[in-house]
Amino acid sequence: MKIVGVGVGPGMLTSEASKVIQHAEIIYGSPRAIKLAQEYITCEAKNIGDYSKINELPSNAVVLSTGDPNLSGLGKYAGPDAEIIPGLSSLQVACARLRVDIADVVVVTAHGRNPTSAVVKFRQAIESGSTVFLLPSPEMGVDMVASTLESFGLDVPIAVLEHLGYPDEHVEVGNADKTPLVNSLLYCIMTGPAIRLDFNLKNKTKI
Amino acid sequence: MKIVGVGVGPGMLTSEASKVIQHAEIIYGSPRAIKLAQEYITCEAKNIGDYSKINELPSNAVVLSTGDPNLSGLGKYAGPDAEIIPGLSSLQVACARLRVDIADVVVVTAHGRNPTSAVVKFRQAIESGSTVFLLPSPEMGVDMVASTLESFGLDVPIAVLEHLGYPDEHVEVGNADKTPLVNSLLYCIMTGPAIRLDFNLKNKTKI
Repeated sequence: MKIVGVGVGPGMLTSEASKVIQHAEIIYGSPRAIKLAQEYITCEAKNIGDYSKINELPSNAVVLSTGDPNLSGLGKYAGPDAEIIPGLSSLQVACARLRVDIADVVVVTAHGRNPTSAVVKFRQAIESGSTVFLLPSPEMGVDMVASTLESFGLDVPIAVLEHLGYPDEHVEVGNADKTPLVNSLLYCIMTGPAIRLDFNLKNKTKI
Repeated sequence: MKIVGVGVGPGMLTSEASKVIQHAEIIYGSPRAIKLAQEYITCEAKNIGDYSKINELPSNAVVLSTGDPNLSGLGKYAGPDAEIIPGLSSLQVACARLRVDIADVVVVTAHGRNPTSAVVKFRQAIESGSTVFLLPSPEMGVDMVASTLESFGLDVPIAVLEHLGYPDEHVEVGNADKTPLVNSLLYCIMTGPAIRLDFNLKNKTKI
């Protein structure tokens, strides 16, 4: 089995990934992952119902993962013989847009298996002055970010990044007083002192 | 100016990156970056002498960065109007090979501007039980990793990953007692409890 990262938006497939997809005998993925890879798909592509069961798929299966399989993706379900092919993640596109070095970022996944540890990790990172990239959940969103910053008395930027890589990509940067709005379900958040505001970018709003 | 990540090895260019390179009027990069992008280059490609001066290059320049420009790459030199196009980093390929989730990793860049803070960050991460991805330097290499683990009494894997993505890629996994060998200048290190050893991989040696 091969687990292939298709990137977080259009045009992000690597040549290695597109070759694997072109030569696949059977493909599985979410509707969004299949759409991102569509131009290279030459075989049957089936929707995945239960991601935790990908190990029960045939050994020749090519499984598509949006973003990078190893960032809150399907990599964690990979069996011992699976091959993982990385893809561009939302973390990388967010860092490119906000001019943040990936080495300066603490990554927090709110929709992981352990919501309590995600909250603890987030608060510790904020308290220590780190910049945090957050894959949010309904409970851990921009309001939680703003209230955490306020509780520590921190005035640092909060960025909401929606539809990264898509034509309707939108990045809005505010702070705890003026929190950026979230208008979609496909978004991520970055907050912290490493966000650079001295640059120009299409589709970006400072509030 | 566009700063384009070409990935850490062959076949990692995204379709967006290869289109930008194909339509470039003038390209700058290191010899390795230019070689990775060679098949898409249709204009003159010049070697960069001093990376910190890329802002003095013409505004139509396409500057190639190995890996991801925002992971110890050229992104930090980007001017306010530059556009950064991400690429696959050694961190991602290492996480794919060793089955580690990127959210579980602390990234330390030894050859950055401040070697002392890199050592402090590395020791703090190891002491707290984190898994660390290290872009090494002559002073901060596998011996320093092993002695740090020993000083904290930690028995966790140490992986040396050489030539990631190239045909002669080699991954060797040991520990503080049996440290993996480094045979080249193009390598990175991962160490910590998140490294999974229960999988099979070509080109990988457990010692």
